[in-house]
Amino acid sequence: MNTAFTIWCTGLPSSGKSGLADALGPAISSRGFQVEVINSGRMRRTPLGASLGFSKNDRDTNLRRHAFASNLLVKNGVVAIVSAVSPYAATRAAIRNELDRFLEVFVSTPKAACIERDVDGAWAKALNGEIRDFTGVDAPYEAPVDADVEVDLSQLSVEAAVQRVILKLEDLKWVAPLQNRGTEDDRLLDPGL
Amino acid sequence: MNTAFTIWCTGLPSSGKSGLADALGPAISSRGFQVEVINSGRMRRTPLGASLGFSKNDRDTNLRRHAFASNLLVKNGVVAIVSAVSPYAATRAAIRNELDRFLEVFVSTPKAACIERDVDGAWAKALNGEIRDFTGVDAPYEAPVDADVEVDLSQLSVEAAVQRVILKLEDLKWVAPLQNRGTEDDRLLDPGL
Repeated sequence: MNTAFTIWCTGLPSSGKSGLADALGPAISSRGFQVEVINSGRMRRTPLGASLGFSKNDRDTNLRRHAFASNLLVKNGVVAIVSAVSPYAATRAAIRNELDRFLEVFVSTPKAACIERDVDGAWAKALNGEIRDFTGVDAPYEAPVDADVEVDLSQLSVEAAVQRVILKLEDLKWVAPLQNRGTEDDRLLDPGL
Repeated sequence: MNTAFTIWCTGLPSSGKSGLADALGPAISSRGFQVEVINSGRMRRTPLGASLGFSKNDRDTNLRRHAFASNLLVKNGVVAIVSAVSPYAATRAAIRNELDRFLEVFVSTPKAACIERDVDGAWAKALNGEIRDFTGVDAPYEAPVDADVEVDLSQLSVEAAVQRVILKLEDLKWVAPLQNRGTEDDRLLDPGL
């Protein structure tokens, strides 16, 4: 069994975390891993997340549950990819401490670009005061200063960001490099390749 | 990948559920499965269970979380073995409905035998009125009437109970029978067997 690991994508709302997490899924399963993507927004609509609000305490509980689920998966050989705002540095540090192989990916798309993306309209509502405790408006985001990988999705395509994460995983030897599949000429000579 | 499943052990406190679940772990992993045992008592000391009490509502939330964790594991090919009092028939039915391959094991050790076992002293405290909402004392236990397997651990050894569960899993073709390893004579003739 391959040794599994956790990839934790942190960043502002609408920074592109969940799109990155979804794209990382197939990229990592193609390296021979079973992979589960845990999306914080979706998790809040399950029995694990229901009843939790957005106070610091509830946010922390929410993230500890993500960490618990990741740990359950990872110890059984399944790679866990979490996308969650995870705004507090101390909470992220505690979770890193709890989990064995933990890769922190900072999705550093700037606030202005996140507001422009606003995939679910939540930034607009928060800026209008319709919703409260919104990270980046009236709740803090403590940006990582030592993330393992940083990707700004206003500058990089999702594919390029996936590539950066994969290269980091290869550097760490958590995933093996793809085998050389031969040159284009080899493939022309042997259609089986 | 083998198709995984959930084994859900329900029964009174101190009926022997968690001992059975722990013994089922290696029996099933020897059939080529990755296995995770989820013990309800231990789960209550994690971020998934902390803050939950023993009201009907909190018990239900607790079990829905066990089901969520099982589902996460099973869809990634890991067998989930849950031991939890799970006293309400409707909750058990809802969980069975939610999960694909679900084997309900009723640990039917009678109340008198559970009180005698009283592995953690909780029966004594409940009977003294020191703790409330205790299943079998002042909270109901709705015994299953159609469990897939029933084992009374005041009559059966844990090993015999494991064997019953395994036979049921073989009947369902969820696990393959162990290969014939030859007779004792074969083994004497060929030390490699």
